[in-house]
Amino acid sequence: MKKITLLISCKDKPGIIANVTDFISKNKGNITYVDQHVDTEQDVFFMRLECEFKNLDSKSFTLRFENNLSKPFALTWEIYTHNETLPKMAVFVSKYDHCLYDILGRYKSQELKVNIPFIISNHDILKPIADSFKIPFYHIPVTKTIKVEAEKMQLRLLKQHNVDFIVLARYMQIITGKLIEQFPNNIINIHHSFLPAFVGAKPYHSAFKRGVKIIGATSHYVTEDLDAGPIIEQDVARVSHTFNIKDLIAKGRDLEKIVLANAIKQHLNRKVMVNNNKTIIFS
Amino acid sequence: MKKITLLISCKDKPGIIANVTDFISKNKGNITYVDQHVDTEQDVFFMRLECEFKNLDSKSFTLRFENNLSKPFALTWEIYTHNETLPKMAVFVSKYDHCLYDILGRYKSQELKVNIPFIISNHDILKPIADSFKIPFYHIPVTKTIKVEAEKMQLRLLKQHNVDFIVLARYMQIITGKLIEQFPNNIINIHHSFLPAFVGAKPYHSAFKRGVKIIGATSHYVTEDLDAGPIIEQDVARVSHTFNIKDLIAKGRDLEKIVLANAIKQHLNRKVMVNNNKTIIFS
Amino acid sequence: MKKITLLISCKDKPGIIANVTDFISKNKGNITYVDQHVDTEQDVFFMRLECEFKNLDSKSFTLRFENNLSKPFALTWEIYTHNETLPKMAVFVSKYDHCLYDILGRYKSQELKVNIPFIISNHDILKPIADSFKIPFYHIPVTKTIKVEAEKMQLRLLKQHNVDFIVLARYMQIITGKLIEQFPNNIINIHHSFLPAFVGAKPYHSAFKRGVKIIGATSHYVTEDLDAGPIIEQDVARVSHTFNIKDLIAKGRDLEKIVLANAIKQHLNRKVMVNNNKTIIFS
Amino acid sequence: MKKITLLISCKDKPGIIANVTDFISKNKGNITYVDQHVDTEQDVFFMRLECEFKNLDSKSFTLRFENNLSKPFALTWEIYTHNETLPKMAVFVSKYDHCLYDILGRYKSQELKVNIPFIISNHDILKPIADSFKIPFYHIPVTKTIKVEAEKMQLRLLKQHNVDFIVLARYMQIITGKLIEQFPNNIINIHHSFLPAFVGAKPYHSAFKRGVKIIGATSHYVTEDLDAGPIIEQDVARVSHTFNIKDLIAKGRDLEKIVLANAIKQHLNRKVMVNNNKTIIFS
Repeated sequence: MKKITLLISCKDKPGIIANVTDFISKNKGNITYVDQHVDTEQDVFFMRLECEFKNLDSKSFTLRFENNLSKPFALTWEIYTHNETLPKMAVFVSKYDHCLYDILGRYKSQELKVNIPFIISNHDILKPIADSFKIPFYHIPVTKTIKVEAEKMQLRLLKQHNVDFIVLARYMQIITGKLIEQFPNNIINIHHSFLPAFVGAKPYHSAFKRGVKIIGATSHYVTEDLDAGPIIEQDVARVSHTFNIKDLIAKGRDLEKIVLANAIKQHLNRKVMVNNNKTIIFS
Repeated sequence: MKKITLLISCKDKPGIIANVTDFISKNKGNITYVDQHVDTEQDVFFMRLECEFKNLDSKSFTLRFENNLSKPFALTWEIYTHNETLPKMAVFVSKYDHCLYDILGRYKSQELKVNIPFIISNHDILKPIADSFKIPFYHIPVTKTIKVEAEKMQLRLLKQHNVDFIVLARYMQIITGKLIEQFPNNIINIHHSFLPAFVGAKPYHSAFKRGVKIIGATSHYVTEDLDAGPIIEQDVARVSHTFNIKDLIAKGRDLEKIVLANAIKQHLNRKVMVNNNKTIIFS
Repeated sequence: MKKITLLISCKDKPGIIANVTDFISKNKGNITYVDQHVDTEQDVFFMRLECEFKNLDSKSFTLRFENNLSKPFALTWEIYTHNETLPKMAVFVSKYDHCLYDILGRYKSQELKVNIPFIISNHDILKPIADSFKIPFYHIPVTKTIKVEAEKMQLRLLKQHNVDFIVLARYMQIITGKLIEQFPNNIINIHHSFLPAFVGAKPYHSAFKRGVKIIGATSHYVTEDLDAGPIIEQDVARVSHTFNIKDLIAKGRDLEKIVLANAIKQHLNRKVMVNNNKTIIFS
Repeated sequence: MKKITLLISCKDKPGIIANVTDFISKNKGNITYVDQHVDTEQDVFFMRLECEFKNLDSKSFTLRFENNLSKPFALTWEIYTHNETLPKMAVFVSKYDHCLYDILGRYKSQELKVNIPFIISNHDILKPIADSFKIPFYHIPVTKTIKVEAEKMQLRLLKQHNVDFIVLARYMQIITGKLIEQFPNNIINIHHSFLPAFVGAKPYHSAFKRGVKIIGATSHYVTEDLDAGPIIEQDVARVSHTFNIKDLIAKGRDLEKIVLANAIKQHLNRKVMVNNNKTIIFS
C-alpha cells in the first residue's frame, strides 16, 4: 500500500469536493481521510486528503492530477508520499535549553519522526547537549557587524543538508527576509507570550507589569513582520499575584516546550495550511 | 437554496467517500462541508455532509439515496433539512435553577434555535422562572409509589407535543428504560462531575473527600446504565484545598451550565454521532 | 460572634505581621484567616485578615487600631463588618443580555449576596428582564451631545441609593473620569478579550483576523485609561479555524459571564486589593 | 540573614496564629510569609511561615519553640533551614524516558535545586540517559520471586545516600509498605490519568474505551492504597474522537512530565502539607 497526503486550495466553487474525490476514486485510490474548510470571507477553499493506493506511479498520477484537476480548477496543491525519507529539521538555539531538551527527547524516542542534520547556535553553551545526542552543532556567532555573513553560513548549511524546515527553539536573533524567503511557512518559532499580547523581547516582564492572571506561549511561522506570522498553536496557564518574574518565566518554559513540540508535530503531519496570515489546522 | 445535513455510518470499505460525494454531485448538490471518521478498532465508517441544492425534492432524493447508496453500502443514515420548523426540546428540572436560567436566556436571545413546548419538574419551585419566560410548566411529582404513573404523564406530554429531544437540566430523578427507549440518544443529561470519576448522587462531596485539584462536569446521552452513557462534552476547573464543599458546588454550577449548553448546541447542529457508547463530535 | 475582615497595606517593614496579629489577640479577637503579600519591587506590604470577636465595639476598636497600629506603621486600611446590610451593586447594561441574565440568576438564588437597587441602560430593550426580576430599570440614553447630562443623572441615582459599586455588564459606553473618581476601584467591567490583546471595541473581529487559537475575557476595574485598569479575573477558551466571527462571539459570551461573575464575587468577598494598577486576589 | 520555613499543624483553637507570630517576633525573627488553613470538618489547623533572622541558633530556637509553643498547643511541626545542603532525591524509572529527560533537564539547568545521588530502574534501557547526565544508574530487576530482595537493595542504596525523597518517574512496579513506611509522604508518583478516574495499569486504554473528552495526569504521594494517596497536582488536556490510543498516550506524556515536575517543585519548596489523605498546597 502506498499512502499519500494531498493539500489543496483554490477559489471556492461548486463541485470541487466531488471532482477531487471522484478523481482519486477513478485512479484506484481509497480515501481514508478528507476534511475541508472554506474561508467564507475570502471565498477560498481548502482541502486535506489521505489516500491509499495498491500501486501508485507518483509521476503519472501527478501529471493526471495537474491536467484533470489542477488546471481546470486553478488549484494550488501539494502532495506528500508517506514512509519515504524522513523530513530534515534544523534546530536553531541560543542559551535556553528547555525547548532543546524537549525536542531532542522526543526525537530520541521517535515521537518526532524527523532527521536532525544539525543544530545551529549563536552561542556555544548548549554544545554539550547536542553532543550527548550525537547531533552536529555549529556555533555561528551573530552580531550586528557579522549578521549578514552569519546568515550566509546558516543558508549554506541549510542548503547543503537539504533541510526541509527550521525550528527556532528559543533562538534569540531576528531572522531576516533572506532566510525567510527560502523557507516560506517552514520556519517555526516559539514566542514566550500569548500573542498578540506582549510582542517583543521581554514578554514575561510585560506580563508581570500588566498583572495578567493567565500567561501563554505561541508557536507561529516566521514572517518578515516580527511576532506576527500565522499562529500554529497556543497554550496558556493560570498565574497569580504571588508569581514574580522568575516564577512567570519558569511557568512559561513549560508552556513553551509543549506548544513548540505540538506545532512541530502538526507541521510534520502536514496538517497545517496557511491562509491570509492565519493557519488551518486539520484534525 | 435548500440546505441539508447528512449523517452516514456503515462498515468501513473502500470507495465509500467517493461514492457518496459522487452521488451528491450527480444529484446537482454542492457539498459545502464534509468530514469523516473511521473507528479503526470496530472498522466502522462515519460521515457528515452539508449540501446545498437549487431545487430539492426531498422524497425523490431520499428514494434515490436509499436505492443507489444506502442499500449497496448497507448504510445507516439520517437526513436533516435546514430552515424548517425548529426542533422541539423539552426541559426537565428539579430545584436547581442555574442551568434553567442559562438555557432560557440562550433560548430568548435565539442563541439556541429551538422550540421549548414545556418544562417538566418534580417540584414546583422553578415555576416562576418558566412563567417569566412564558413557557408552560408541568409539575409532575415523583415518588417511588407514583413513579410509573409520573412517567406515563411525562410520555403523554412528550408525544402530544412531538418533542424531538429532552434536556435534563439538573433533573434529580433517574430516567427509566421506558422513556429512554422512546428517545434513544435524544435525552441529554448534565452530570456534576468529570465522569467517570464520581458517578452517583453526591459527586462534589466525593471530590472534596478525595482532595482532587480539578473538578469537572460532563454532559452525556442518557442510557439505562446510570451516568455511563456516551459523553458529549466535558469541561473542568481548577480548585484547591481552600474550597469547601459549598465552594466546589458553586464553581461546579458554572461548569454545568456551560457544558450542558454546549452539548445542546452540538446536538441541535447535528454534529453528534454515537458509536459504541462513545460520541463522534464533528467540527 | 462578630466577624470582621481587615485589608491592610503599608511600606514593607519587619514586625508588621507580628504587630497586627498581636493587636488582634490583645483585643480578644481570634484570627481565622491571615494571608499576606509583599510586592518586592515596590517594597509594599499587603495583608488580609478575618477575625472573630465575642464582643466588638467597632468604634473603639477602630480608634485603638488607628492609634496603636495605623499611625506608627503608616498603614492604609479598611475594615468590613460581616452580616450587616448587603452591599449595594448597580448594574449598567446596553443591549447584550447574557451577562445580565447570569448576574440576576445568581442574585435570585442568593449566590451573589447583594442588593441591586437599579439597572441603568442606554437602551430600553433589556427592560423586560429587569421587570421579570422586579428590579427598577432606568433608561438613560447616551449620545455625544447629552453624555454629560446622562452622567449627571447616573451619578444622582448612584448617590441617592448609596450604591457601593457598579458592574458594567457589557455596557457599551465609555465611563468618564467624573464617575470613576467617585467610585475608585469600584467599577467592574467585563472586556470581551484576553487583555492586553485586542483592546477596543471589536475584539472578536481582531481575534478572528489574527487567527488566534485561544480567545479570552477579562474583568477589570475601570480607570481613565481605557481597557487598562487592574485585572481582577481572566479566562480563556480554545477556538479553531472553523470558528467564524459569530462562533467566536458565542464562545466569548460564555467566558464573559463566568469571568464577570467571578470578579464580582471576589470583590464582594473583599478579596481584592489594588497595587500599582495590578490586583492582589487573596484566596 | 538566616531563613527558615516552619510547617505547623494542631487541633484548631483560638489564639494559635497570634501566639506563633508573637513567638517569632520575640525571638527577633521577621515573618516574610504566613499562610494558614483550617480543615473545618476535622477541626485541624495548618500553618506555613517563612522567617528571617539576623542570627539564629537553630538548636536553642528549636528548644524554645518546643517548650513555649509546641507543648502547650500540642503542635506537630517541622523546621527547614534554607541554603543548607540540597535535598537528596532518588529517581526510579522503568522504560519510559519522557519524565526522566524532563526531570534531568530541569536538574541540569538548576530549575530543580536538588541533588540526585542515583537513578534506580528495573530495566537497563535508560542507562545511557543517566550516563549522559553523569548520574549513577543502578539496574535492579524486579520479578515476583526477587521482589523482596530487590526492595532490600533499593532500601540499602536509599539509606546509604541519605535520600530525602523518591520520585517515581513512570516506574512501573508497585511500591510495598516496607519502602513506604520509611518514606511517608516522601514518595512522589505520577499516575497517567485524572485520578480517581481510571486507576490501575492501562488508564489510556480505559479513557479511550469510555470516550472521555478530556484526559489528565495526577501526581500524588504513594500510600499503601494503590493510586489513592494524597493528590499533589493534576492537569488535563482536551482530546477528541480523532485521538486513537497512541495519540492519547502521546498527549498524556506531555501532561505527565509537567505535572510531575510541578509536584516535585511544591514538595521541594515545602509547600505541601498532608491532611487526612489530602494535601494543602500553600501558595
